[in-house]
Amino acid sequence: MGSSVYVINPNSSQNVTAEIDRAVAPLRSADGPDIVCLSLPEGPPGIQSQRDVDGVIMPLLCKASELEDGASAFVVACFSDPGLHALREQSRRRVFGIAECGGLTALTLGQRFGVIAILPTSVPRHLCYFSAMGVMDRFAADLPIGLTVAELSDEAHTLGRMVDVGRTLKAAHGADVLVMGCAGMARYRAALEEAVGVPVIEPTQAAVAMAVGHVRLLQALAP
Amino acid sequence: MGSSVYVINPNSSQNVTAEIDRAVAPLRSADGPDIVCLSLPEGPPGIQSQRDVDGVIMPLLCKASELEDGASAFVVACFSDPGLHALREQSRRRVFGIAECGGLTALTLGQRFGVIAILPTSVPRHLCYFSAMGVMDRFAADLPIGLTVAELSDEAHTLGRMVDVGRTLKAAHGADVLVMGCAGMARYRAALEEAVGVPVIEPTQAAVAMAVGHVRLLQALAP
Amino acid sequence: MGSSVYVINPNSSQNVTAEIDRAVAPLRSADGPDIVCLSLPEGPPGIQSQRDVDGVIMPLLCKASELEDGASAFVVACFSDPGLHALREQSRRRVFGIAECGGLTALTLGQRFGVIAILPTSVPRHLCYFSAMGVMDRFAADLPIGLTVAELSDEAHTLGRMVDVGRTLKAAHGADVLVMGCAGMARYRAALEEAVGVPVIEPTQAAVAMAVGHVRLLQALAP
Amino acid sequence: MGSSVYVINPNSSQNVTAEIDRAVAPLRSADGPDIVCLSLPEGPPGIQSQRDVDGVIMPLLCKASELEDGASAFVVACFSDPGLHALREQSRRRVFGIAECGGLTALTLGQRFGVIAILPTSVPRHLCYFSAMGVMDRFAADLPIGLTVAELSDEAHTLGRMVDVGRTLKAAHGADVLVMGCAGMARYRAALEEAVGVPVIEPTQAAVAMAVGHVRLLQALAP
Amino acid sequence: MGSSVYVINPNSSQNVTAEIDRAVAPLRSADGPDIVCLSLPEGPPGIQSQRDVDGVIMPLLCKASELEDGASAFVVACFSDPGLHALREQSRRRVFGIAECGGLTALTLGQRFGVIAILPTSVPRHLCYFSAMGVMDRFAADLPIGLTVAELSDEAHTLGRMVDVGRTLKAAHGADVLVMGCAGMARYRAALEEAVGVPVIEPTQAAVAMAVGHVRLLQALAP
Amino acid sequence: MGSSVYVINPNSSQNVTAEIDRAVAPLRSADGPDIVCLSLPEGPPGIQSQRDVDGVIMPLLCKASELEDGASAFVVACFSDPGLHALREQSRRRVFGIAECGGLTALTLGQRFGVIAILPTSVPRHLCYFSAMGVMDRFAADLPIGLTVAELSDEAHTLGRMVDVGRTLKAAHGADVLVMGCAGMARYRAALEEAVGVPVIEPTQAAVAMAVGHVRLLQALAP
Repeated sequence: MGSSVYVINPNSSQNVTAEIDRAVAPLRSADGPDIVCLSLPEGPPGIQSQRDVDGVIMPLLCKASELEDGASAFVVACFSDPGLHALREQSRRRVFGIAECGGLTALTLGQRFGVIAILPTSVPRHLCYFSAMGVMDRFAADLPIGLTVAELSDEAHTLGRMVDVGRTLKAAHGADVLVMGCAGMARYRAALEEAVGVPVIEPTQAAVAMAVGHVRLLQALAP
Repeated sequence: MGSSVYVINPNSSQNVTAEIDRAVAPLRSADGPDIVCLSLPEGPPGIQSQRDVDGVIMPLLCKASELEDGASAFVVACFSDPGLHALREQSRRRVFGIAECGGLTALTLGQRFGVIAILPTSVPRHLCYFSAMGVMDRFAADLPIGLTVAELSDEAHTLGRMVDVGRTLKAAHGADVLVMGCAGMARYRAALEEAVGVPVIEPTQAAVAMAVGHVRLLQALAP
Repeated sequence: MGSSVYVINPNSSQNVTAEIDRAVAPLRSADGPDIVCLSLPEGPPGIQSQRDVDGVIMPLLCKASELEDGASAFVVACFSDPGLHALREQSRRRVFGIAECGGLTALTLGQRFGVIAILPTSVPRHLCYFSAMGVMDRFAADLPIGLTVAELSDEAHTLGRMVDVGRTLKAAHGADVLVMGCAGMARYRAALEEAVGVPVIEPTQAAVAMAVGHVRLLQALAP
Repeated sequence: MGSSVYVINPNSSQNVTAEIDRAVAPLRSADGPDIVCLSLPEGPPGIQSQRDVDGVIMPLLCKASELEDGASAFVVACFSDPGLHALREQSRRRVFGIAECGGLTALTLGQRFGVIAILPTSVPRHLCYFSAMGVMDRFAADLPIGLTVAELSDEAHTLGRMVDVGRTLKAAHGADVLVMGCAGMARYRAALEEAVGVPVIEPTQAAVAMAVGHVRLLQALAP
Repeated sequence: MGSSVYVINPNSSQNVTAEIDRAVAPLRSADGPDIVCLSLPEGPPGIQSQRDVDGVIMPLLCKASELEDGASAFVVACFSDPGLHALREQSRRRVFGIAECGGLTALTLGQRFGVIAILPTSVPRHLCYFSAMGVMDRFAADLPIGLTVAELSDEAHTLGRMVDVGRTLKAAHGADVLVMGCAGMARYRAALEEAVGVPVIEPTQAAVAMAVGHVRLLQALAP
Repeated sequence: MGSSVYVINPNSSQNVTAEIDRAVAPLRSADGPDIVCLSLPEGPPGIQSQRDVDGVIMPLLCKASELEDGASAFVVACFSDPGLHALREQSRRRVFGIAECGGLTALTLGQRFGVIAILPTSVPRHLCYFSAMGVMDRFAADLPIGLTVAELSDEAHTLGRMVDVGRTLKAAHGADVLVMGCAGMARYRAALEEAVGVPVIEPTQAAVAMAVGHVRLLQALAP
């Protein structure tokens, strides 16, 4: 078994990967597994549609195959968890998805979780996914901030929209914990939590934390 | 809008496509939409793994895109419904999946449906899918016949295994309707129904029936 | 087996039956089963209460018994599906209910379905029915237009109310597909779909489409 | 408001009514409401099919209407709860069904309830009903003893079959409380409970107990 | 077996116990079991937090142990049902919880039940409890009136808030039956029911009614 | 915020605590939080009954209160998660329960999780807990090994029973991931996984891994 936790951002954006890398930095330790974040050059600049989700699976499997020998675990770092089951089938390493780990971690922090999506079109996809996970009795709602890629570059406006949506999830839908429904937004987490007054899960952190724990436990068994 | 219902078998097996074609033949009528069954040459000989499922999505979308103008509806004819949501996103036509339509049609015929899978490895995939569909309260069980491709060529043995599994689904799991968890097996449907004593849904027939109905209703609205 | 799909409107309104007949006309074909729509003279002018629902069952069973020999399938054309299970028990033909088929067909078109009811008192009955169907995880809400029979004769006003309710189901309850919770309203379907911007299922069409498909498949097996 | 709790056995069997009367006798008190058990002469000798269930609704509503003025509550004493919702709609009194009250009372005594049915054909009807009640997460299984009316007259054999089925529900399905899925069987309750080793609910007792409590509370409010 | 139904209010407030005593008075009869309501001196003045809930369990078990010989049944009279399962384990008598019985009784009166809580912090606890009960498909919402202990002493204001919350549960969340999410509020029940226009369950009454019924049935079996 | 993750074994067994300490040792790192495992001297030698579960809550809260200033997180290390919600209410640190984390982590490894309990009496408690968690659609079954404390000291026999139960969960109940339903059994994990052929979650490891991840992320935010 290799030593690295590979966190694969299945889009081609180096900025998103860099943001993920910063988000998971606190999970690195001198005596723990490496945590290597990388983009998928074959992926689109951002994963917005179902086509984008499905389209990155084959290149993601190919990339993961190249990384297999050096890998101790994989994290798929897109909130639609593209290729999660196929990668689990392909790899001898354990594979974590950020939507799955984000949602499950939320269940340890509140009775009903709300999700802040970017695009309205992602909402039914998230619902279907959480339904497949079997956690709808704990689900409050999933609401989009509805900003375009251009608008997302305005950080104050983006945070403002996240806070608005978070407050609606709390007040109107009874959410007492929130999940950020997108990778690469970790810089807003603390401010969002502060403004809305409920815990906020950043899903790449949730998934990498579980991956690192798993790898440490596994390495302890190795001869 | 085009006039054809395109039934895309996302594997490359002409035999399976021919079997689907025979299965849906009774749904053709002189004054109704064409029903055109075709294979996906880029697909694997059979769809067995999650990788197979995910791997056919992009070629299936590409094929469907070429067919769009002539299409009145699409049917994805593999029991994992690969690319269903992506094709719905891409196409202006309505898109039907055989697992979805097979499972839903079963709900009109019994209180609890059982599924006869081919491979054991398909079972968790089916469970996840029916969970995403939100119908687990009506689900009895999903059991595999566990035959290899070579063994499937022995028709008597295949039918025998299907009957065994069907009887177990009925007696031990309370299924009062069965769904064949695979395309291209329609020739066994009547004998299986007879032997087990509960209705059996052949999923390509279920999906194409719904597609034809939709197209007829839509064409009636056209100017 | 007889050749006709009998669509039984279990109220005595010839107008409703005529509207159903027009709605399902596109599902007729030269070489397919007859589709015969008929009223139940013993039924009330409209089915509004639970008593109305239960009260039509015995006359409906009686009527269906007379029609049995000429029938290839039955459709119960009232959104409370009165007598559905009893007719399935009585008849050797397959029996379809419009609420069941309407709800199930909706699941192929959206993640969460909303229902437009006529009367407020029908709403808990619908909830109970969809709960029995086991599909509440996919259910958005069921809201009434709240018009009296007299008011329903004003078509523009009726459509206006349907559009209002449909928009509320979409915006406030997250419905991305709608089901018309009543037979005999097909003339509003296209306009409602256009105005609300999500697919709208007319349930008699959904049920008859499934019935016709079934009959065609069954007749192909006949010697 | 009248003073009697009317327990309507919707079949015509005086023996069953007499057995119900004995079962609920301990719930009578000098200063409490009368508890009057009666048969429905228009009903069949026993309620075995869905047709039987649906067929007794209108005569049951008619009978209840005659009794309305003297009634303080109604109990529908057949495990399919025929006409429960229609009678609630018709009557100004509260209406209890024995399947509903039996199932709900079971939830206070164990984590998963099993049901002992008489006929195999009742099982899917019960499942549909408990699904409509929304309690399937607490449901273990429903199994029939499978005896004919003639065989039911052999009490030792009937008890023996109930014990067999009860033990299977406990051992194989994890039931830790049982519900007798039929009225008129109260004489077996104590022996069954003793033999199987889990609490057993007799549903007419469960429903009449709730009805009597309700009437006492209501009468205390009367001027 | 003793003859008393012990209703244990696990807080130390004599006022609340007196109110419970008045609420259940109509359930007493000359020939029935005694109904004895008592406070738990070791309990807090009111049960507001999870710590309060958990903290009363041991003293409650101790008190119940002292009462065991004289008891025919126990009722735990706090809407968080503290110690319900532990008391069931300890005692040879049947044990009823007011939240459990209140929620279950509500299911006999409406399709979706709403709960009126006192404190916002109780809401997630209630949700978790109803989820454990497996009845979330019938659950509308749980909303707090949000009054402090001091404010609760103003009866008109308290009723006003209950009516406001009840109307919101009905209009915005579709509740057609309400449960008072607290013991000791029975004096508001009739006015609340009148003002909101749906049935209102007072949970100590619901639980004691079930307890009395049980005891009567059990005593009838005694030699 | 303190620096230690306190893992509180709420029984008084030093052996169990030592076993937990060994189990979580690989999760320690030079630059990470301390992980301190401790027993609760006031607790019983083992937690077997509901009374045991409820009885340790107050001493556990008291102990945690003493540890609060030095704590960065708490883990409650008993598979009934005693006091989880009360400790979350009391503490300013995040609190993890091993049943909750064990069950949630299992959802990342298989479609249906099975639980290996020690005592039969724990099974309904576990079912109730997983029902409260809202994950019953992913739950296969919970079966006890049924050994007494004395028998548990025979390690070979204990492992043998675990393997038997694990194989039954896999073969008869469709579990494709197992959770050990007890703390202090980590030494059997690898052998059990090997023998049954599905992943096995040791719940203290699952919970401590999540706790450590959380603490690292939180400490990175500290000024």
